[in-house]
Amino acid sequence: MSDKLIVFDTTLRDGEQSPGASMTHEEKVRIAKQLEKLRVDIIEAGFAAASNGDFESVRAIALAIKDSTVCSLARANDRDISRAGEALRGANSARIHTFIATSALHMEKKLRMTPDQVFEQARLAVRFARQYTDNIEFSPEDGSRSDPDFLCRVLEAVIAEGATTINVADTVGYAVPEQYGEFIRNLRERIPNSDKAVWSVHCHDDLGLAVANSLAGIKIGGARQVECTINALGERAGNCSLEEVVMAVKTRKDYFGLDVGIDTTQIMPASRLVSGITGFVVQPNKAIVGANAFAHASGIHQDGVLKARQTYEIMRAEDVGWAANKIVLGKLSGRNAFKQRLQELGIELDSEQAVNEAFARFKDLADRKSEIFDEDIHALVSGEQGEAGEGAYRFVALAQRSETGERPHARVVFSENGKEVVAEGQGNGPVDATVHAIESHVRSDAELLLFSVNAITTGTESQGEVTMRLSRSGRIVNGVGTDPDIVVAAAKAYLSALNKLQSPVEKVHAQGI
Amino acid sequence: MSDKLIVFDTTLRDGEQSPGASMTHEEKVRIAKQLEKLRVDIIEAGFAAASNGDFESVRAIALAIKDSTVCSLARANDRDISRAGEALRGANSARIHTFIATSALHMEKKLRMTPDQVFEQARLAVRFARQYTDNIEFSPEDGSRSDPDFLCRVLEAVIAEGATTINVADTVGYAVPEQYGEFIRNLRERIPNSDKAVWSVHCHDDLGLAVANSLAGIKIGGARQVECTINALGERAGNCSLEEVVMAVKTRKDYFGLDVGIDTTQIMPASRLVSGITGFVVQPNKAIVGANAFAHASGIHQDGVLKARQTYEIMRAEDVGWAANKIVLGKLSGRNAFKQRLQELGIELDSEQAVNEAFARFKDLADRKSEIFDEDIHALVSGEQGEAGEGAYRFVALAQRSETGERPHARVVFSENGKEVVAEGQGNGPVDATVHAIESHVRSDAELLLFSVNAITTGTESQGEVTMRLSRSGRIVNGVGTDPDIVVAAAKAYLSALNKLQSPVEKVHAQGI
Repeated sequence: MSDKLIVFDTTLRDGEQSPGASMTHEEKVRIAKQLEKLRVDIIEAGFAAASNGDFESVRAIALAIKDSTVCSLARANDRDISRAGEALRGANSARIHTFIATSALHMEKKLRMTPDQVFEQARLAVRFARQYTDNIEFSPEDGSRSDPDFLCRVLEAVIAEGATTINVADTVGYAVPEQYGEFIRNLRERIPNSDKAVWSVHCHDDLGLAVANSLAGIKIGGARQVECTINALGERAGNCSLEEVVMAVKTRKDYFGLDVGIDTTQIMPASRLVSGITGFVVQPNKAIVGANAFAHASGIHQDGVLKARQTYEIMRAEDVGWAANKIVLGKLSGRNAFKQRLQELGIELDSEQAVNEAFARFKDLADRKSEIFDEDIHALVSGEQGEAGEGAYRFVALAQRSETGERPHARVVFSENGKEVVAEGQGNGPVDATVHAIESHVRSDAELLLFSVNAITTGTESQGEVTMRLSRSGRIVNGVGTDPDIVVAAAKAYLSALNKLQSPVEKVHAQGI
Repeated sequence: MSDKLIVFDTTLRDGEQSPGASMTHEEKVRIAKQLEKLRVDIIEAGFAAASNGDFESVRAIALAIKDSTVCSLARANDRDISRAGEALRGANSARIHTFIATSALHMEKKLRMTPDQVFEQARLAVRFARQYTDNIEFSPEDGSRSDPDFLCRVLEAVIAEGATTINVADTVGYAVPEQYGEFIRNLRERIPNSDKAVWSVHCHDDLGLAVANSLAGIKIGGARQVECTINALGERAGNCSLEEVVMAVKTRKDYFGLDVGIDTTQIMPASRLVSGITGFVVQPNKAIVGANAFAHASGIHQDGVLKARQTYEIMRAEDVGWAANKIVLGKLSGRNAFKQRLQELGIELDSEQAVNEAFARFKDLADRKSEIFDEDIHALVSGEQGEAGEGAYRFVALAQRSETGERPHARVVFSENGKEVVAEGQGNGPVDATVHAIESHVRSDAELLLFSVNAITTGTESQGEVTMRLSRSGRIVNGVGTDPDIVVAAAKAYLSALNKLQSPVEKVHAQGI
């Protein structure tokens, strides 16, 4: 068995399925480039058949990425698979990932198919996918709760048809480590042609066991591919965390005995990029990438800290990219320096006009904030793209005031399909007044589910990044806005969320795996 | 072996050791009462010898709690143990938890003691503790990295001296599940009197494995006590999450075969209370208590959701206390209704005067916010206590304005040791201007490490809860402020953090376990 662990990142597919985590086309490409820098082996770029937008995103990523294999999900039917195959046409290295549910519960309740029908459809799907590529992954959805005899029959057949990776999904996060590891070992031992495929794990974190289950699938089960996401993003409680599983295998190489190709110093930049784009905060006590992960409690003397380094740290913060923020640009930086930094950050803007617009924003920001960090540039460009999207609403200007004993007031100027609107409102606080002002004109009828602000860098001069999560008719969207003035950031976030609510929902939902 | 799993919560001890998570006396009592409602078996209330403040907190909790055992940590020396014993004197049921490092690295680098010295000190500590109680827990710190032969010698001796619980700490989060489980099983098999003690697990989450390691210690190792915290709070990446380990054992009772006494419907209230008091946010994709833990992605039809319930949910949101917010009080609620609600929430104020003050604040809030939720009341009382503390600074009033193209301005009125100060400032945004205004007078020289805002309930009318984390000379404090106006909340948070920075640091740091 190989001693290399293949890292398959699904931030852009399973991660994006989290309520509120949907990303724009451009954001997806930016994350994909960071994943390539991280040296992820396979990037699951999306689910091409879900919508035209998803198809285009997979295609753009397939063209942009050179070093990683690019993968698209596809249900086990010809249409989905041909959409995936077409979207991946330009890739340096492509994979089609097809799946069908194999547990009795899912076959009966969701698919309304007999086991024999599922067996046939799985075989035909893999056979059909071979028209497009020899790199085919097959996942039995809800695999960990499937009958082992039936699973052996299905998996033997799909390997015979040419599936090169078999991914035993713990779709609902029900597995426990030892049992899940033995489940996979048992399958591998019983299936005669099991050595023709790489075995893979895909775990959800509903009981907090996604990383441990993945590691048991590797150690006990002999899996050599792990599916994971940055910051453990994913449906419900999320997926296996890339940063945790990779650092566990690296830190405990004595136990796992496996190599991983990941450039771990790119972990923190990846984590910050994904949390900035999705607006999903990382809690301080999150392993590896949380603000406290490498922080020791107060009250230890300098001497103690030095002793503590040896006695309490099992990893070095530097190795996962926890470097101090570097000031990269300032007020005096020119257009060329700015453009070069964009390139270094993997940000590609469509045209020189777009660079000019971003540069103008940069200068505006540098007037108000003396030190500009990489995070600021990411935020600047995200905001730019977000607002320049097809959405109807764009922020123009804001004036607000509040004073103890008086009712806060806001006056917001924004454009609606290019036409300028001036709206005023009052509220409990300046943010509430701003939202009331916008709503006095828009009347979206949306409900605000979540409001959070995070500073992008340290210091009070930092820009505030506001996330607003709105819900309407069961649809949930996250709007993100950044500005040194958090009330302005809130207005931008609210308008961005309204834009997302307006975009058509023609997406097919690939519930599961 | 018993089929009951004992739940030992250390939110108030190990959780409070996280940088920035320190709590006031009153906040600790409030959390302890919620833990009692949750039916936690043992509450580790603190480390009595760390400071007079810690001693008083342990004592107050010992007196306030009736149903749970109250425990204090103590290093393995007479002074620490007698402080713990004294603090616990009034408890219905008390435990002393003493510890000493047993790994070669910790003995040599941290303790500078020989194994024989450590062996002797461990025995003497347990013998000394028996003066105070028969309920004694002993932890070998860095136990999972200790030499098994030496550990057998120490543990056999402390059990012989009367230790009734043996807690094998994975202090640095280095363990992996199967190995850790077998490590404990091996110890239990080799130590002749091992059946005289309950075995316990205490795991840290540096590699994301705290829950899985704990479960392996239980399933493979035969441990029957789990040490854990609400929201996985704790040093660095935190401890084993109470909510995850409890729900794993409950949901997979078929596998673990254990009973747990926890009232799981109190999990969400406990999670909200701890995150509100500490200012440590819970990320949306956190298992069990994250906002998305039970949310399915958008785009599924109503029919699909109903099917999905059966096929995709392994737990019910209601069972862990995810109920819709209930409006509990409003503008017309009287003092009695308010007082009764305080009692129901386990909030006890010192005097009728304190109730009057809280009620006045409540009326003030109800004037500005039509619906008052439990979270608002918690925030109201936290704010009250926080600001009424011994700190020098109290918020009085604020006026601020910002307008696109102009520099934001703030005028803050606050009291400093009872004397009113009016300060003005400008900044990038209203929050920055507010901080500059305060700093123009205070000149604290503190660095702002983190700034975050969360809405306490849903809707734009919600109060904003601002956390500001300041650092000075290696000391880190979190200030929390709440108000419907987030700029006011930020001013309160900043003043609260300044108060914490001013309080004396005479606390002994119990690095580890």
